[in-house]
Amino acid sequence: MRVLGIDPGTATTGYALLDGEPQRPDEIVLVEHGVIRTAPTTPMPDRLREIHAAVESLIVDLQPDVVAIEELFFSSNITTGITVGQARGVILLAAAQAGLDIAEYKPNVVKQALTGYGAADKRQMQEMVKLLLRLSSIPRPDDAADAVAIALAHIQLGRLPR
Amino acid sequence: MRVLGIDPGTATTGYALLDGEPQRPDEIVLVEHGVIRTAPTTPMPDRLREIHAAVESLIVDLQPDVVAIEELFFSSNITTGITVGQARGVILLAAAQAGLDIAEYKPNVVKQALTGYGAADKRQMQEMVKLLLRLSSIPRPDDAADAVAIALAHIQLGRLPR
Repeated sequence: MRVLGIDPGTATTGYALLDGEPQRPDEIVLVEHGVIRTAPTTPMPDRLREIHAAVESLIVDLQPDVVAIEELFFSSNITTGITVGQARGVILLAAAQAGLDIAEYKPNVVKQALTGYGAADKRQMQEMVKLLLRLSSIPRPDDAADAVAIALAHIQLGRLPR
Repeated sequence: MRVLGIDPGTATTGYALLDGEPQRPDEIVLVEHGVIRTAPTTPMPDRLREIHAAVESLIVDLQPDVVAIEELFFSSNITTGITVGQARGVILLAAAQAGLDIAEYKPNVVKQALTGYGAADKRQMQEMVKLLLRLSSIPRPDDAADAVAIALAHIQLGRLPR
């Protein structure tokens, strides 16, 4: 199965395409990863248009079977939550418009799946991603690494989407 | 100018089309108002797709010059903020994709513009909308009335969008 992991944000949205099956964890391949960036000087509606168009292109280019995305969870900054919610909205829209299944995971579920520990820190997560995917280095930048982790958790959990 | 006012929400998005000029406040016409509803049993990505498609249709049908929308402001419920942020994201996207200008107003600015009082309650706002637009009754439902208020504030403030 081809899983497009996405870590949504207005300034930087991380993405990663993994190809693999839960039954063969040592054959999962990181096909591509990167980030979609938008400029803070661009008006928000245009930034959302750029993010939506970029995700549309990724879906066409990478042909995922499913999109895996983190459930938003904020403990402190409400304004950031609303802004990320807007970016997340246009990403979910692009996936729905393409007819893809969408799987959502809480951050602690992703951490638990990869490290066995729901409160693992960023560095531990990145090292596990590198180890599990047999990479020579940690995927960069951080937002792309987060997207790899979400996609990997989806395969490891072997869950049916939705 | 034709102003499409929108009050975003996942379950209910209110909308209203006003036609008028700030120089002629007693000739502003409420052309249409209503709500876009989505079912709570529908998966969120599909609800976002429905909202996006409905706003696209409204723009085609009503031919607004500008979209006026409330700036999100939450003091209490963060989860609601994220959910409304997602709906707001696909609405801003539809407006940007149509090449429309977008004006955003804080709730207290809308209240101040219509009643001269930034902390006016919902009932006072609705009565002022009815009075200013020479309506025989308050627009229903509440979410549509809120959208009328935002569009009316935009015309009254006579501001250039963005």
